[in-house]
Amino acid sequence: MASIFTKIIQGEIPCYKIAEDDYHFAFLDINPVSEGHTLVVPKQEVDYLFNLEDDTLKSLIIFAKKVAKAIDASLDTIRTGVVVEGLEVPHAHIHLVPIHYEGQHVGLGKKAEVSKERMIELAERISEAFKK
Amino acid sequence: MASIFTKIIQGEIPCYKIAEDDYHFAFLDINPVSEGHTLVVPKQEVDYLFNLEDDTLKSLIIFAKKVAKAIDASLDTIRTGVVVEGLEVPHAHIHLVPIHYEGQHVGLGKKAEVSKERMIELAERISEAFKK
Repeated sequence: MASIFTKIIQGEIPCYKIAEDDYHFAFLDINPVSEGHTLVVPKQEVDYLFNLEDDTLKSLIIFAKKVAKAIDASLDTIRTGVVVEGLEVPHAHIHLVPIHYEGQHVGLGKKAEVSKERMIELAERISEAFKK
Repeated sequence: MASIFTKIIQGEIPCYKIAEDDYHFAFLDINPVSEGHTLVVPKQEVDYLFNLEDDTLKSLIIFAKKVAKAIDASLDTIRTGVVVEGLEVPHAHIHLVPIHYEGQHVGLGKKAEVSKERMIELAERISEAFKK
């Protein structure tokens, strides 16, 4: 059965989309740790990040870098952190967590309150920066 | 001035070393979130992970994959998670945090109690697995 991320990629489940190319997809996490928290996934369904083939992992991290740079360029971040746990959805994914203030940890579990209107705005801003 | 990680790489500060090649270095975090928590750093001193050149970032993630596989092969993990925050030391580094049980988050801040003897044992086991 297709993973929830594959359903999002295929448009069966709606998302706040950030960017896409032939092999990768990025969208806002609906349970954000901080504003602009984005998930980056390979279109290929592999459960564990470190079971991705070397070439796939390399292209994924470069795509993630581009998305992180778009987050940094469009939001008021110090930088963007990274978390990978991956036990909840069996489809490898990288959390890009914007760091908005000194001492902010990027660990998952906490949830920031972000309205639907703000999620739309954040996705648009990051997406526009990604295209530049 | 050389970063604390450069001093570790150059042997000026001792560490529980895991692995090294021409461009990368891995050693146990002395404030581990879980047993086997390892830091992977490029020898090049660049502050922000996503400011690394594409080729450097690619080779770093592949080195990190090899270390994560060695952790998984030598310790009783479910898998190995990833965290990058990087605000404390201005030298890019990837935290590889072994996940030992379902529901364990990899976020930094918590500290596992690991004795010096156990750190030596963990480093030896992961290091041996890395060589295979």
